Amino acid sequence: MADPAFLACDWGTTNLRAWLVGGDGEVLASRDFELGVSRLGPGEAEARFANEVRPALNAQALPAILCGMIGSNLGWRQVNYLPCPASLDDLRKALTSVADGVRIVPGLRCDGVAGAPDVMRGEETQVFGWLKQDERRMHGRHVLCHPGTHAKWILIDDGKIVRFITAMTGELFAVLRKHSVLKSDASADDEAAFDAGLEAAEDGDALAARLFTARSRVTAGGAAAESTPSYLSGLLIGAEVASVPKLLGVSLDHPIVLLGDEVLCRWYERALSRLGVSATAYDGEAAALAALTALQMEGAPK
Amino acid sequence: MADPAFLACDWGTTNLRAWLVGGDGEVLASRDFELGVSRLGPGEAEARFANEVRPALNAQALPAILCGMIGSNLGWRQVNYLPCPASLDDLRKALTSVADGVRIVPGLRCDGVAGAPDVMRGEETQVFGWLKQDERRMHGRHVLCHPGTHAKWILIDDGKIVRFITAMTGELFAVLRKHSVLKSDASADDEAAFDAGLEAAEDGDALAARLFTARSRVTAGGAAAESTPSYLSGLLIGAEVASVPKLLGVSLDHPIVLLGDEVLCRWYERALSRLGVSATAYDGEAAALAALTALQMEGAPK
Repeated sequence: MADPAFLACDWGTTNLRAWLVGGDGEVLASRDFELGVSRLGPGEAEARFANEVRPALNAQALPAILCGMIGSNLGWRQVNYLPCPASLDDLRKALTSVADGVRIVPGLRCDGVAGAPDVMRGEETQVFGWLKQDERRMHGRHVLCHPGTHAKWILIDDGKIVRFITAMTGELFAVLRKHSVLKSDASADDEAAFDAGLEAAEDGDALAARLFTARSRVTAGGAAAESTPSYLSGLLIGAEVASVPKLLGVSLDHPIVLLGDEVLCRWYERALSRLGVSATAYDGEAAALAALTALQMEGAPK
Repeated sequence: MADPAFLACDWGTTNLRAWLVGGDGEVLASRDFELGVSRLGPGEAEARFANEVRPALNAQALPAILCGMIGSNLGWRQVNYLPCPASLDDLRKALTSVADGVRIVPGLRCDGVAGAPDVMRGEETQVFGWLKQDERRMHGRHVLCHPGTHAKWILIDDGKIVRFITAMTGELFAVLRKHSVLKSDASADDEAAFDAGLEAAEDGDALAARLFTARSRVTAGGAAAESTPSYLSGLLIGAEVASVPKLLGVSLDHPIVLLGDEVLCRWYERALSRLGVSATAYDGEAAALAALTALQMEGAPK
């Protein structure tokens, strides 16, 4: 086995994915930890990284590069947001050292909806990794959607992230499914109910009213209560894809890049397909690794 | 004191308001009980009505007329929904006897958003009571908003409820304030933050994206975390008033009737006023009593 050169980590809210990378950029080992920043006590990040992550990958003394919520006030240390437009080179110049040999990738900020700022932390690394995975992507425009708790719609021009908008779709789904009159333990994999939710979303306006249909279709329309999570998922994703790209000022007449969790990306593909939009899904973690590797290998001190 | 003639109750999800009414329709006594149907065990309604509500108003043997969620599967017994258009006379003909001398007012249903059914139970009684409080209201068109957990926008033509749409605005506010990344124990009475939320709501589309501004204005924009509930309230109410009337097919160029909780109605008035729409607020409980009295006195067996 080649000598390990560095440790790369995508350290998010819920989980941490770590890769041990060799001198030619090859992955020597990888591991997931249930150590997301929401599970860390205050000030705990450094010690748990040293005592749990490094030993598990036999990487006690290697340089490390981290992206994601670990750079927030809930993580290791708050790292700045860079303004948009921003490139991978901009990220490299702003890498922040938080301990000997440990650097954190900054997040991004831009002017978002209605004059409010918008922010991301972690997705930018995946986006630049996706660009890096095929150099032809460095030219022209891409519209990328990163689904999740806080879904991001991202406009990319010539290798730079120009602007983005965050939608709390995943969080709305979670709190409504768990705490509202729509609560249900049923699974969300009923395609017909998902499609019915997409239909009810229409152009995505008046969401609070559309949400009530998830209740009334059961109480007054005879739909099965177990189909509520799937319908709710379709309604929320349908409303997002029908309205957020417009707000970002992009048309849906060229293909959308979906980046992130495989299962979730499939539901977004289904929602976009209903609007006649083609979309291709890519693995977010592979993309994160590509960017972290580029940042470390091209930017490491000689 | 005149002889009591009947007991009228607006029996909702959270509370029960009961009035002891005399033979000329005058209120002899009234009382609130923390006995909403969400606080009742299965099958408990009849016994608690007999053992707690009746004795408290010294109304053991009087006829009683009840409206609200007490007519749902969580209440005393599930009472049918009447189809729209519906008038107070239609409600009277469909009063359902659930025990000796105890009748429940039916709810209403109509075709709502995106072909799904919509339903109400309790608000219809308040609406007809509001019409009854001034006979001139029986003619022409009214657009009425009943704010709350499940807010209703109601179109009335010549004394009939023609159509309505429910928006889960209050429930969205409650679950987001309590369970999401926007959670906060702060009060929601900051007018400037409420107005900022109204501004950010714009035309009410892309709500999941607009909701994220409630987070990013604090984390990246320097707004005070304590202002989040007020901003969230403005955002959700603003999105509702900007989008739900359109969905109901009504214009906002004549005054809106607000019916319900006084404090909540004031926030809706503020949101409508910003759109240049005048609104007048009326007390929902007084309206409920007016309808229950009309139903009982004009409809009681001779």
